[in-house]
Amino acid sequence: GAASNDIDRTAINTIRTLSMDAVQKANSGHPGTAMALAPVAYTLWQDALICDPADPVWPGRDRFVLSVGHASMLLYSLIFLSGIRDVKDGKPTGKPSLSIGDLEQFRQLSSKTPGHPEYRHTTGVETTTGPLGQGCGNSVGMAIAQKWMSARFDKPGYPLFDYHIYTICGDGDMMEGVSSEAASTAAHLKLDNLTWIYDANRISIEGSTDIAFTENVAKRFEAYGWQVLVLKDANDTAGFLKLLEQAKAEKTRPTFILVHSIIAWGAPHKAGTAAAHGEPLGAEEIRETKRAYGWPEDKSFYVPDGVMERFQEKLGARGKEAHAKWNELFAAYKKEYPDLAKEIELILSGGLPEGWDSEIPTYKTDPKGVASRASSGEVLNAVAKKLPWLLGGAADLAPSTKTLIKDGGAFQPAEWNGSYAGRNLHFGVREHAMGSIVNGIVLSGLRPYGAGFLIFSDYMKAPIRLSALMEIPSIFIFTHDSVGVGEDGPTHQPVEQLVQLRATPGMITMRPGDANEVAEAWRTLIPFKDRPVALALSRQNLPTLDRDKYAPASGLAKGAYILGDSGKKPAVILMATGSELGLAVEAYEKLIADGIAARVVSMPCWELFEEQPQSYRDEVLPPDVTGRVSIEAASTVGWHRYVGLTGEAIGMYGFGSSAPAPELMKKFGFTVDAVVAAAKKQAGV
Amino acid sequence: GAASNDIDRTAINTIRTLSMDAVQKANSGHPGTAMALAPVAYTLWQDALICDPADPVWPGRDRFVLSVGHASMLLYSLIFLSGIRDVKDGKPTGKPSLSIGDLEQFRQLSSKTPGHPEYRHTTGVETTTGPLGQGCGNSVGMAIAQKWMSARFDKPGYPLFDYHIYTICGDGDMMEGVSSEAASTAAHLKLDNLTWIYDANRISIEGSTDIAFTENVAKRFEAYGWQVLVLKDANDTAGFLKLLEQAKAEKTRPTFILVHSIIAWGAPHKAGTAAAHGEPLGAEEIRETKRAYGWPEDKSFYVPDGVMERFQEKLGARGKEAHAKWNELFAAYKKEYPDLAKEIELILSGGLPEGWDSEIPTYKTDPKGVASRASSGEVLNAVAKKLPWLLGGAADLAPSTKTLIKDGGAFQPAEWNGSYAGRNLHFGVREHAMGSIVNGIVLSGLRPYGAGFLIFSDYMKAPIRLSALMEIPSIFIFTHDSVGVGEDGPTHQPVEQLVQLRATPGMITMRPGDANEVAEAWRTLIPFKDRPVALALSRQNLPTLDRDKYAPASGLAKGAYILGDSGKKPAVILMATGSELGLAVEAYEKLIADGIAARVVSMPCWELFEEQPQSYRDEVLPPDVTGRVSIEAASTVGWHRYVGLTGEAIGMYGFGSSAPAPELMKKFGFTVDAVVAAAKKQAGV
Repeated sequence: GAASNDIDRTAINTIRTLSMDAVQKANSGHPGTAMALAPVAYTLWQDALICDPADPVWPGRDRFVLSVGHASMLLYSLIFLSGIRDVKDGKPTGKPSLSIGDLEQFRQLSSKTPGHPEYRHTTGVETTTGPLGQGCGNSVGMAIAQKWMSARFDKPGYPLFDYHIYTICGDGDMMEGVSSEAASTAAHLKLDNLTWIYDANRISIEGSTDIAFTENVAKRFEAYGWQVLVLKDANDTAGFLKLLEQAKAEKTRPTFILVHSIIAWGAPHKAGTAAAHGEPLGAEEIRETKRAYGWPEDKSFYVPDGVMERFQEKLGARGKEAHAKWNELFAAYKKEYPDLAKEIELILSGGLPEGWDSEIPTYKTDPKGVASRASSGEVLNAVAKKLPWLLGGAADLAPSTKTLIKDGGAFQPAEWNGSYAGRNLHFGVREHAMGSIVNGIVLSGLRPYGAGFLIFSDYMKAPIRLSALMEIPSIFIFTHDSVGVGEDGPTHQPVEQLVQLRATPGMITMRPGDANEVAEAWRTLIPFKDRPVALALSRQNLPTLDRDKYAPASGLAKGAYILGDSGKKPAVILMATGSELGLAVEAYEKLIADGIAARVVSMPCWELFEEQPQSYRDEVLPPDVTGRVSIEAASTVGWHRYVGLTGEAIGMYGFGSSAPAPELMKKFGFTVDAVVAAAKKQAGV
Repeated sequence: GAASNDIDRTAINTIRTLSMDAVQKANSGHPGTAMALAPVAYTLWQDALICDPADPVWPGRDRFVLSVGHASMLLYSLIFLSGIRDVKDGKPTGKPSLSIGDLEQFRQLSSKTPGHPEYRHTTGVETTTGPLGQGCGNSVGMAIAQKWMSARFDKPGYPLFDYHIYTICGDGDMMEGVSSEAASTAAHLKLDNLTWIYDANRISIEGSTDIAFTENVAKRFEAYGWQVLVLKDANDTAGFLKLLEQAKAEKTRPTFILVHSIIAWGAPHKAGTAAAHGEPLGAEEIRETKRAYGWPEDKSFYVPDGVMERFQEKLGARGKEAHAKWNELFAAYKKEYPDLAKEIELILSGGLPEGWDSEIPTYKTDPKGVASRASSGEVLNAVAKKLPWLLGGAADLAPSTKTLIKDGGAFQPAEWNGSYAGRNLHFGVREHAMGSIVNGIVLSGLRPYGAGFLIFSDYMKAPIRLSALMEIPSIFIFTHDSVGVGEDGPTHQPVEQLVQLRATPGMITMRPGDANEVAEAWRTLIPFKDRPVALALSRQNLPTLDRDKYAPASGLAKGAYILGDSGKKPAVILMATGSELGLAVEAYEKLIADGIAARVVSMPCWELFEEQPQSYRDEVLPPDVTGRVSIEAASTVGWHRYVGLTGEAIGMYGFGSSAPAPELMKKFGFTVDAVVAAAKKQAGV
């Protein structure tokens, strides 16, 4: 094992002391887990993980996920000690990702070492973690992506995508439901490329886990269908290495390694206590701990000679060799399979195939129309034909959300009659894991979507937020987006979900108003590289507007646009989204017929509208026009930004109800008469 | 077993055919599960469940939770057939809760039989279900409440609270993480009063569960620590009854009964298929199914003679006797333990002890002040002293959220060194189950709270929403309520969470601005009977305002109030909540010193403010004063309702960052200078 040599023991203690020192200097952070897991993480990186520090985004690398994000100093120490190079614009710069100075700036303003590891912020961090359980879910997504890439691209003699995903998780992760969902999914999919290393330190913030968490975790994972291995002592690096080998050797299941550890190992008074979890050890305890490690007591942020070199000898040399081999392999592959190689390069660069949008349909005027979930299903399929790495699925709602890719095949192991090249994922009734898995797949370069009813975005809010924080282009398709759901009733009718998504920084929420806006929504969202999208789609039919009479749907790209106008200075502006757009148009026509200078604005995406220049926004919504009515079958919270103190927001002021949708629309005031009446009041007539 | 007699078989088929017919007539709904589970539910109700149809809110009754809420017709059929009486204002009216006419109105506007069962809406429905997994979590809360009531009130010879909680759940429930969290908790707490009946029909919306869900569920529940029993055939009522007896006999663990069933049992073409899950069977299939049952083919909503009588012979007679015994017992108890009996009566009537708020402290002016999480902890304890059935806990964050009830003891089984009379619950890192469990405890009459960081309200949005939909007074305490969290960084800093809560219909979101507002928040929220509350509290210290100089904190009860005013017509109004109130006050003082007619309004609760008469709202925010600035360290979405098109909303326009809180406040513009500058601009000076 790694620690059989003195230098390895020294390196492990370097990780421990850097973690202690950084938390102490910041006077904030979590030292205990990093100290406990240093031997495990060190052994994993030095003896198993395949990663080239000179090019940390090399696609053939193993992935390392620190689901216990609060132990961020463990990861920062490894990134620093292993000499991982910084990456800018997808290319390594040759400069170190982290310096000792960066570690000293742990948790300080604008530092590269924030409290929890942040993707994009610090090279070497594969995903943003901290909210517990998310790293577990992400890692399942990464494992799915690896299987898919391998199934699509690998050829005999060309194992291009042959990497493993390692996740370190803790008691908190194991208590969170999202990891249960993800674990069940991983075993069903027989993801043998996935290893979770579970730090069973039996300590949480409130004290011993005996107060809340006394289940048999190992047996639970056996029940899911994982290979379960146990390490009795986190310091037994030789034993751990053997278990890692067993994990790699297993070819039908993911592997769960349960590691018994002692939090803050080596700290004479705080080891094994909750006090070591979330606060600095204190100067005196640090001194005594360093003494116990045989460390210079008064040195802080001390890296003994030979430690960084040791990383180059092992992790560095192994990664360099593997990377070089891979480059050769890929060069040969490029000659033999130029089209596939081009595809791989596009994926890795975040590009799109030429003509990817050439089959997106245009819809003819149709008063009866089509549900936006249905037109979205058609557009999705039109894009999927040209964009082979668009893949996804629903949380057991593919038929209702219309998200099946025709002839895409099911992503399943052969045992369940599918193939890993399949493009239709079956997430089961597991919305939370779906969100987290989708993020993991995006982080691997593919373009996945996750689908469900808008109401159930509540179950997956955490990963939706993380996609926005990570600035990754996850696609969330949410249908049944209002009280228009009908008979299923208020438990299934979203009200506040749209505003939740809109208020999440960085999320792009689109609620297209007819089939052509749906087409434009997909045309707009697919090229996104750094922003997630939530599409809100109707269950019920929406009329397809006459685009000869009204402005073209391409206005969607600007977030909001003038759909129809009297040509005079507006006496009143009607604003609507999604299923209420048709209603707004009908009311607009009535107002025009009554001689009222009305304007109707389609507002499918607030966020894109806010990004337009002030001049455009003032053109659409002239500041001196205060006669304003918004119409949306959802909470009105947020609409006053556009209707102001004196305008009227027609929306939902309570929960929905169970009844056929047309009756509900009437009950809740979404009628032409109500809109016309509000508009006339606003226009002062 | 139940179905050994012809009349029992007839009754079971009555449930099946009512379910088929109602879904068919509504042309919407889920017939298959009700048909499959009719024998199971019938046997449970007829041979085990203790419930007096004449008084369905009798506190000694067993609880029945239909976690598979989509099978609502199963429950409606049972409520109708068993003759459960309607309850108004807590008292049975003598009229049936549901008539055959109500069943015929399934899923229609204003009917008593909505698509999914709704608490308060239909007597006999113990909790609102539909969003999967929630009923499972609720049932754990009900089991906790039973244990607590029993531990506090039962005396030798007086087993007043000796009831069992039965939950029917399905594959969807089992896939959801919330049920995993709840199951782990139930086993840890050794809730032997809880039985989950798992309908393993192996069919979900997308088809066979083989596409996504192939784990060993029975083994998983053994791993949690449940007694696991298996019924091979849902139609084996005798076998099922034996398992129910085993469940009742078990005295150390909750029981999980895995029932193999065939969805839409008896339907010749659709049995065992996904087509029977979420849509009507169709007239012809119904005809053939009735034929298979030996049913009159052309009769719809047909209830054979003797079926309703049979319910009275068994469920009715057993319940009546048990209820009468209980009444006798309680009468004697009342004599022997008058104080405790009074307490029980208060709990059951939703009342409060006299002087419950007499120890709520008043805080002295203090520029350094105190974190609102800390003052809230003090006030909570002051209330807890006088309100014995206030109990709760955190998702492993009791020390950080300051939610421990001093000397309250831990709610734990004796094996884990606690007692079921303990008032401090340890939920573990399981926010989602916590929310769902809190709802279940509230449904049993107690006043529980669940606590965590505001950011993690994302993990429990679904049960928060359900508390609002059910109109129950759940209390959610969310601390660390802004970027003021500091070093933990953006993964832990809420931005959009406040607006999420505010946009949820019926939720009361309070963000008190100093210690005295915290005291008033608790004084206001404890008497609530039909509305849940989310308290947003700071990690950092907040100055305690001088209430001789500024208006009293009792203004909180009106949601917003004028804290300070120049006495002239305001040139600008500053509005703030929570941790930004002190900042607004400082800016106000500067403006006044500069001779600007400023007003500062404290706005801790939008929802209560909106309930005030227009005259009061206009007094606080005069419509002709358009110089307006809002200050809140959160998303500004929603604030334009108060600042209008031309006011300024100072808030978060992106994610937070990892650094000491004071630096972040400066970085994100929460400074006196910035507020003064914005206010002067608004005032036109």
